Amino acid sequence: MSTEFAPVSAPDVDAHRQAVARQLQLTKPAGSLGRLEELGVWLAACQGLCPPKPIARARVVVFAGDHGVAAHGVSAYPSEVTVQMVANILAGGAAINVLAESAGATVRVVDVAVDGDSPEVVSHHKVRRSSGRIDTQDALTELEVAAAVAAGRAVADEEVDTGADLLVAGDLGIGNTTPSAVLVAALTGTEPVAVVGRGTGIDDAGWMRKAAVIRDALRRAGAVTGDPVALLRTVGGADLAAMAGFLAQAAQRRTPVVLDGLVVGAAAMLAEAMAPGSVQWWVAGHRSAEPAHTLALKHLGLTPLLELNMRLGEGSGAVAALPLVQAAARLLAEMATFADAGVAGPSDGGDSADAAAGPDAG
Amino acid sequence: MSTEFAPVSAPDVDAHRQAVARQLQLTKPAGSLGRLEELGVWLAACQGLCPPKPIARARVVVFAGDHGVAAHGVSAYPSEVTVQMVANILAGGAAINVLAESAGATVRVVDVAVDGDSPEVVSHHKVRRSSGRIDTQDALTELEVAAAVAAGRAVADEEVDTGADLLVAGDLGIGNTTPSAVLVAALTGTEPVAVVGRGTGIDDAGWMRKAAVIRDALRRAGAVTGDPVALLRTVGGADLAAMAGFLAQAAQRRTPVVLDGLVVGAAAMLAEAMAPGSVQWWVAGHRSAEPAHTLALKHLGLTPLLELNMRLGEGSGAVAALPLVQAAARLLAEMATFADAGVAGPSDGGDSADAAAGPDAG
Repeated sequence: MSTEFAPVSAPDVDAHRQAVARQLQLTKPAGSLGRLEELGVWLAACQGLCPPKPIARARVVVFAGDHGVAAHGVSAYPSEVTVQMVANILAGGAAINVLAESAGATVRVVDVAVDGDSPEVVSHHKVRRSSGRIDTQDALTELEVAAAVAAGRAVADEEVDTGADLLVAGDLGIGNTTPSAVLVAALTGTEPVAVVGRGTGIDDAGWMRKAAVIRDALRRAGAVTGDPVALLRTVGGADLAAMAGFLAQAAQRRTPVVLDGLVVGAAAMLAEAMAPGSVQWWVAGHRSAEPAHTLALKHLGLTPLLELNMRLGEGSGAVAALPLVQAAARLLAEMATFADAGVAGPSDGGDSADAAAGPDAG
Repeated sequence: MSTEFAPVSAPDVDAHRQAVARQLQLTKPAGSLGRLEELGVWLAACQGLCPPKPIARARVVVFAGDHGVAAHGVSAYPSEVTVQMVANILAGGAAINVLAESAGATVRVVDVAVDGDSPEVVSHHKVRRSSGRIDTQDALTELEVAAAVAAGRAVADEEVDTGADLLVAGDLGIGNTTPSAVLVAALTGTEPVAVVGRGTGIDDAGWMRKAAVIRDALRRAGAVTGDPVALLRTVGGADLAAMAGFLAQAAQRRTPVVLDGLVVGAAAMLAEAMAPGSVQWWVAGHRSAEPAHTLALKHLGLTPLLELNMRLGEGSGAVAALPLVQAAARLLAEMATFADAGVAGPSDGGDSADAAAGPDAG
């Protein structure tokens, strides 16, 4: 159960260069597909293949875990909802199920630290029932944080070994935006009030309680901000540690990831701290309505694909963006080139003043 | 060939109300799907049905036409590219073909005013070869503008009559961002320099020429800004008039539309002027990199779903956003309710301080 990661290798430089060149040969003005061109190039580099293959097995793993801070009234919902929502995902009725089916992806749920009993099929990797109350105690023991990171790594390995060619991590659990906000604040040196969001929809009194918990936890985090594993142990949680292990291991396995919102973003910051360079294997699916998420994105240097004011979790923002990633791969692979289509390309447009672009919306 | 439209009826109020109520019963915190919830409600209202049906036949119609202003060097490409790109779309090699296939939509191309000969299958609605040089002459005659609007209406009717349940208009043609920018400037009272974009990628000298053409055309537009059909005749073009007719007729036929970028946005402003209220049947797919498009969106009061720095045309930005619309419909129709799933909903969360939301990212 090591929490050490091997150095992260970069996506393939040759495939990247070939993809950039191929974008210029396709029947469109140069650069006119904007972010979709960058996405296609990134996927080609991740796959080490130009043109890239279509995404054949996108896999969403929802990491479920509760948090002791929920007892402080930092969430609008009681922890029993987590067990019920695990069952809802297994039955196919949650938002993530519908979004995944719509995008051609499949969903797995893993109980890492639900405060209750889940069906056996999802509890193989369970570390404990709920993580600790981080304002007054550690979220996890040393053994537990190692077990949680190892669980996330094992899940990533299981998914890649069974053919996943794109991974999404999702979160599920009452109280999970509180430790996530603490982690983001600790790693970015941000004041507590700037990271306190409404989560599922708390009122002003709940917001005040959440702010106090974050302030106290942030004080406890102060001594360990330079050590990602210690930070996860002190003010994180088993679900966050597992997600961090999962995201870092995806990079080790050279598998592209679409990131979700605040909770996954916080885990991604820890993964990048544990295994620097992992971020090269990730794109940001969306910008969540949670204020701390914007800090996480900035810290990671990522620009989100979507800004739809979503704040659901479960990986929903990432999967909403998945069709863009799939389309980007197909555009690079399936569009005709100027030569194929007999379309006058940049070098043929001799009589116009500037032929540096392409056809179309003139 | 009338250019008069009947009053536009609004999407269904009862289905809208039912959809808003249903969103609160689904197993998620209230409002946590952000724009996707609004989209689902809008589709339900358009269909007059809650929950809405999935989008079964999304149809993209690319309106192709050239523009006399291209002779001024306002585009990086010669007009011959339009004929070649029509053939490329028919062969399935253009960006719009790949995006549509990826999103489960189909593509039709209609030659309205290509400056050359297209295959017969796409030229039934052809109005003329190229529209006039709008800096010095009218784009169209009175007969031609009526024919072009009628062509767009006929195409919308053909598509709805053969089962289309969502429509996208796309543009194709060298020089088409120039009249589009003029139309936007004329209808918003904007200075010429603020609407001049790079189109397919012109250089600084080309930009200066384009700015001069737009300035001269805008002066010619001054007398007719209050009359949308006269404006299309004077400084528009046959493709723009056909798109305006198409968009207005879609609203007449109570069929939802996802709008594309600048050229379609300009046509949408004219359609809304011809048939006020049509905008209720449209969502904006994306914000184009063309500066005038932001003015068009503001004028129409629409917030785009995507901002990916795209500027390709063909309907590409709208179709890139189509999976979001499809997902929104399915979420509203297929997610489990709190009651179905046995999940503690807003009214059950008794012991928490605020139970106004739902489960999940706490």
